[in-house]
Amino acid sequence: MTSTQELLDSLLEHKASINVASSQVKNQALAAMADQLEAQADAILAGNALDIAAAQGKISPVMQDRLLLTRERIADMAAGIRALLDLPDPVGLVLEERVREDGLQIQKRSIPFGLIGMIYESRPNVTSDAAALAIKSGNAVILRGGKEAFNSAQAIVKALKTGLEQAGVHPGVLELVQDTSRASAQELMTAKGKIDLLVPRGGAGLIQAVVEQATVPVIETGTGLCHVYIDQQVDLEMAVALAVNAKTSRPSVCNAAEVLLVHQDIAADFLPAFEAALADKVELRADASAQPYLQAAIPAGSQDFDTEFLDYIMAVKVLPSLEAAISHINHHSSGHSEAIVTTDSQAADLFTLLVDSAAVYVNASTRFTDGGEFGLGCELGISTQKMHARGPMGLREMTTYKYVISGQGQTR
Amino acid sequence: MTSTQELLDSLLEHKASINVASSQVKNQALAAMADQLEAQADAILAGNALDIAAAQGKISPVMQDRLLLTRERIADMAAGIRALLDLPDPVGLVLEERVREDGLQIQKRSIPFGLIGMIYESRPNVTSDAAALAIKSGNAVILRGGKEAFNSAQAIVKALKTGLEQAGVHPGVLELVQDTSRASAQELMTAKGKIDLLVPRGGAGLIQAVVEQATVPVIETGTGLCHVYIDQQVDLEMAVALAVNAKTSRPSVCNAAEVLLVHQDIAADFLPAFEAALADKVELRADASAQPYLQAAIPAGSQDFDTEFLDYIMAVKVLPSLEAAISHINHHSSGHSEAIVTTDSQAADLFTLLVDSAAVYVNASTRFTDGGEFGLGCELGISTQKMHARGPMGLREMTTYKYVISGQGQTR
Repeated sequence: MTSTQELLDSLLEHKASINVASSQVKNQALAAMADQLEAQADAILAGNALDIAAAQGKISPVMQDRLLLTRERIADMAAGIRALLDLPDPVGLVLEERVREDGLQIQKRSIPFGLIGMIYESRPNVTSDAAALAIKSGNAVILRGGKEAFNSAQAIVKALKTGLEQAGVHPGVLELVQDTSRASAQELMTAKGKIDLLVPRGGAGLIQAVVEQATVPVIETGTGLCHVYIDQQVDLEMAVALAVNAKTSRPSVCNAAEVLLVHQDIAADFLPAFEAALADKVELRADASAQPYLQAAIPAGSQDFDTEFLDYIMAVKVLPSLEAAISHINHHSSGHSEAIVTTDSQAADLFTLLVDSAAVYVNASTRFTDGGEFGLGCELGISTQKMHARGPMGLREMTTYKYVISGQGQTR
Repeated sequence: MTSTQELLDSLLEHKASINVASSQVKNQALAAMADQLEAQADAILAGNALDIAAAQGKISPVMQDRLLLTRERIADMAAGIRALLDLPDPVGLVLEERVREDGLQIQKRSIPFGLIGMIYESRPNVTSDAAALAIKSGNAVILRGGKEAFNSAQAIVKALKTGLEQAGVHPGVLELVQDTSRASAQELMTAKGKIDLLVPRGGAGLIQAVVEQATVPVIETGTGLCHVYIDQQVDLEMAVALAVNAKTSRPSVCNAAEVLLVHQDIAADFLPAFEAALADKVELRADASAQPYLQAAIPAGSQDFDTEFLDYIMAVKVLPSLEAAISHINHHSSGHSEAIVTTDSQAADLFTLLVDSAAVYVNASTRFTDGGEFGLGCELGISTQKMHARGPMGLREMTTYKYVISGQGQTR
């Protein structure tokens, strides 16, 4: 077994092969990677069968389904890679340029980070997604997936490496960590001077562990404790439709709403209509302020306004003012996405100004926070931090920049 | 004494007063802060006298001079604040805008981080510089200066707060940590969810400690192990002038060169001319490859190619190729600034492509890496990391962004 340190050293040796690759070479690599996923489908399915067999009785049926690969799912992974072909290359752009009076030319140029690390859990498709995004943005990449999906990931990476090699990119720019113990995650988190950016993808526990323990630069992603606030003046029908959509259209994802806040002056009109529209699909956990307006709500517990349910559950609170709602959100939110429903443009402006989250909505569902929906074409994850990237991270957020200064002997 | 936690909580309570302040109010605050520094000069000098008295015999004369304030230096600090008045407000810009076919409008708007922390050492002027940059960029700020300068900083902050209040900004958006023990620095480093960005300014030891221990987002600044590489084809006169300038024009600053790399084919021409031009002002520490070409060099020790001398000392090495020089730089550099001197444009392109530092120079001195020289108008520090900001950090790098999405009831 190749150790994680050996993989890191090998990546450093080979990373220039992708860091300086042309747009054409990177696209050729992506096309070949997609083709090889399909060409090596039998080997990938065989690896996946090992993982599925080992998972019997150990993980839930839902998790087993996440882990399962089929020929169709492999085709979807290949299609996901091919979708990157048409996106613009984020590398090599002149972001700013300036020629000083003394003739010194200062260019700010976009460049890849260098080596990106990803720590994630058991979905096999993350392996191909993350590798393809890294390659398109000119980065070498080290992947550390969950041990439940190791054999699947191993076969996927083997296929992707074949594709890289066919396009003339050194296959050593993409590596899968072979050691699936906790120690290897620690090695990535502390690979200072080697890993330029580490992105955890997965549950809140994984992400918190990485953020707290990493000494390499990290982007915190994904935890979505999203709020919908119904202001005192609303189009009631729109308010109900938005709140229902934000909660129920896909409760398991990070941009689904978890908490409903309602202005007290609209509570008697809104909450019964909302409850009726839910048609018992959602368990409402109401604090004392909201209980009087709801038929079937259960009392909210102490953690219900701080929990990402990712399920058909919603915490509900009635508040005396817009300011109280903003304050509640800024104290409890994970900084992902929040929405106000209002016909009052001043209220909307105050909400968007003061709510400190990556995406702040007026009269639209929180469910739109997504790289595809925002027009980025793809998404590595959704940043809930403020440094470097906020909200959906596309290819551009996987680059940094350098200043290139050209002179004719200028001194200072 | 107000505890650091109490200060942090108070800042969170009051930060909106500056986060959402208009450009006009922020400029009024800066003008009043500058005026108050001069109006309260007596109190500031009295505070400084306490610090100077306490420093006798404890810190070097050079450090005492750094600590010393005079009426003229206070006027310089005020002038530094006033210089920010004409710079554009980095907050509230629409960085990108997009209207989808369904009518959803997506705006990416620049906003302040919220609360910025600064940990620095003993120069009193950093207190006013950092406070003014934070205010101009709409950020609340908590300052933790060195204990040697505490009384000076206290008096400066008092004056600045008066200025804030006069302009209608809550003075609680600017705080100086009262506890000068190591514990308070730790409290800032771990104030997760409170401090949005922490910037250490000072020596390499301070910066490394912060980078390693912080759980809040940090920007690594300042360490400059800068290289000048003399390629095989050069204008000899220019090469000598650039290398001399990069080393000697101000050796104590981070953009000064510490290491000279020379292509072996030019060494016999370049190194004697360089040594003659230095006129014994610089101690050259040469490895075995460079010794034959130098008269007065001493042998380089094992750490001399990894040391930021900040002094009239330079490590010298002769290398067989451009590629060897690039590899040496990428292994030893702090990622700050590097220069190539060459008349070969292909060599220049390869150097700028492959050298992985914030600023890469062709035929110009590394000494230009500076916010003012780059046209940013000011500088909080020079980032040597790749995430968020690289190279000189101006006002824009003290902001982040949020997405504001406005709809008419769109659901997904």
